[in-house]
Amino acid sequence: MASNWSSCISDELAKVEVVMDDVTAKAENPQLREMCRYVLSNHGKRIRPAMCILSYRLLGGTEPDKAVDLGAAVELIHNATLIHDDINDEGEMRRGAKALYKQYSLGKSIVAGDFMYALGFQLMGSTSKEIVGYVIEAAAAMGSGEFDQKKYEHNIDADETQYIKIISGKTAHLIEASAKCGAYLARPDDYEAIQKVGDITYNVGLAFQIIDDLLDVIGDTKNTGKKVGNDLVEGKPTIPTIYAMQDPTYGARVREIFEKENTSYDEAYEAIELIKKTDSIERCFALAKKYSDLALEELQTLEDSVYKQAMIDLIDYIVARDR
Amino acid sequence: MASNWSSCISDELAKVEVVMDDVTAKAENPQLREMCRYVLSNHGKRIRPAMCILSYRLLGGTEPDKAVDLGAAVELIHNATLIHDDINDEGEMRRGAKALYKQYSLGKSIVAGDFMYALGFQLMGSTSKEIVGYVIEAAAAMGSGEFDQKKYEHNIDADETQYIKIISGKTAHLIEASAKCGAYLARPDDYEAIQKVGDITYNVGLAFQIIDDLLDVIGDTKNTGKKVGNDLVEGKPTIPTIYAMQDPTYGARVREIFEKENTSYDEAYEAIELIKKTDSIERCFALAKKYSDLALEELQTLEDSVYKQAMIDLIDYIVARDR
Repeated sequence: MASNWSSCISDELAKVEVVMDDVTAKAENPQLREMCRYVLSNHGKRIRPAMCILSYRLLGGTEPDKAVDLGAAVELIHNATLIHDDINDEGEMRRGAKALYKQYSLGKSIVAGDFMYALGFQLMGSTSKEIVGYVIEAAAAMGSGEFDQKKYEHNIDADETQYIKIISGKTAHLIEASAKCGAYLARPDDYEAIQKVGDITYNVGLAFQIIDDLLDVIGDTKNTGKKVGNDLVEGKPTIPTIYAMQDPTYGARVREIFEKENTSYDEAYEAIELIKKTDSIERCFALAKKYSDLALEELQTLEDSVYKQAMIDLIDYIVARDR
Repeated sequence: MASNWSSCISDELAKVEVVMDDVTAKAENPQLREMCRYVLSNHGKRIRPAMCILSYRLLGGTEPDKAVDLGAAVELIHNATLIHDDINDEGEMRRGAKALYKQYSLGKSIVAGDFMYALGFQLMGSTSKEIVGYVIEAAAAMGSGEFDQKKYEHNIDADETQYIKIISGKTAHLIEASAKCGAYLARPDDYEAIQKVGDITYNVGLAFQIIDDLLDVIGDTKNTGKKVGNDLVEGKPTIPTIYAMQDPTYGARVREIFEKENTSYDEAYEAIELIKKTDSIERCFALAKKYSDLALEELQTLEDSVYKQAMIDLIDYIVARDR
């Protein structure tokens, strides 16, 4: 998290860590506490708290500590869902470390996920109904997103429209919700501004996930902390594969590999080489750019500030990142 | 649910079913909807909605429909945790039907549990911070309860104090929270009355779980819908086993079986026969009665009404039930 975009909110992001530590320290059971720490210490990009705090500032909020608790709450909820996702996807690694259920047990990890989820909502509980509403709605959308994704696993009918629907549910709505929490805190009565911040960050969320999925093809394990080709092995309908399946020359073989259950890593690597020969990578970047441009365009209608510049930098970082 | 105690709130309990159906119908994904239906149609005792509605009435609430949504919300959250519990405990059956993860898949069941959990909180979201607070606190306590239980699995150091702590977290606090939701709705400013209803139903919750655990030893599959001896096979530190392990004659063999990992059903049945030879069953009933008496005693301080009588009948039913 050493990029420039975070410098103007670095104090608040540091406080987010403290709040998450304090909240999970409340777990009476020592192993439950240890498991929460394991997940949180394996540091993610903290995009969601950043969105909450930046959005609060974007709309002129002057007491950023107010947004810290909410940012931490959303990050706890996000991490809770990652614990369950890894079980669901049989993911072995998360950010360069063993997935929680591989390090501990499946049963305990399910409970630890539920617990962290409850902690997130508990931390949010002392705010307003609207705020809880944003996040709960996103949490419910996540379930739908996961199911839609499962429906298109190893399914060559997957297309861009379906993909956008899946990643809206899985990723973009929680990022949007986190931002709307911050926006609401700053201007509770300004429905239009809250909606605008929501639209901006929803589009950022889509761009973020597109790049994330692209990194499964063109990423470097050293940077991403996870094996390349995972999504292909799991048969996930991600956009690099979807585009490559449409290629007149290489599409047939990519479809063949994608359709097969029990894809091996060798086959996944073969598919990756084929994907790279098509225009898929280019189209993925263009799609991410389409959404980040939408975000940037709407962002321009907001008043200039160091926080607006930070949001622009964050968007640039998201589209250009290699991890 | 044909007992007398529910007759004065039967309309409201029927509405709870309708609300839960409506809410889960919102799932866009057809299979996710189907899985929610599967869980909810496999009808439980609906103790938690009953507690919410009766508590509302106990404190003089006159618009019981207000309590219906909250009762449904808590029941959704309860069912969500059961989905995850079954995975966690490797439970095969739930109320006479296959556990969700056995009927569908583990991954989908984790997500369906998370989704139903989110739906419960969503339904609750339009009420007050206090109400969400009660339920979230109970949800967090559930995680601790599960971990405490795991710590004492196959562990002969398990004792009554630990057991009560475990079932407080696993069961009693959510029943208490459900009741406090109803109480708060009826008298938001009467902290003392809310607390009293909370204390009463917390004790009912303990008695409920003690009998539930006893039914794993003396129950009849035809009534309970699950195999007898399950808890012993799973090495769960429940009170019939804890008491039997203290028996001077049969305790040594019960401890031997309980301590062993991979307990077979034959061994569990042997343990059950031994438990029945000790004073454990009697002591379990006495323990349940201790808590139900505490509840009844405090209940007497509330004004007489048909709802108070229903609560008394419900408590009698809980202690005397065979399912």
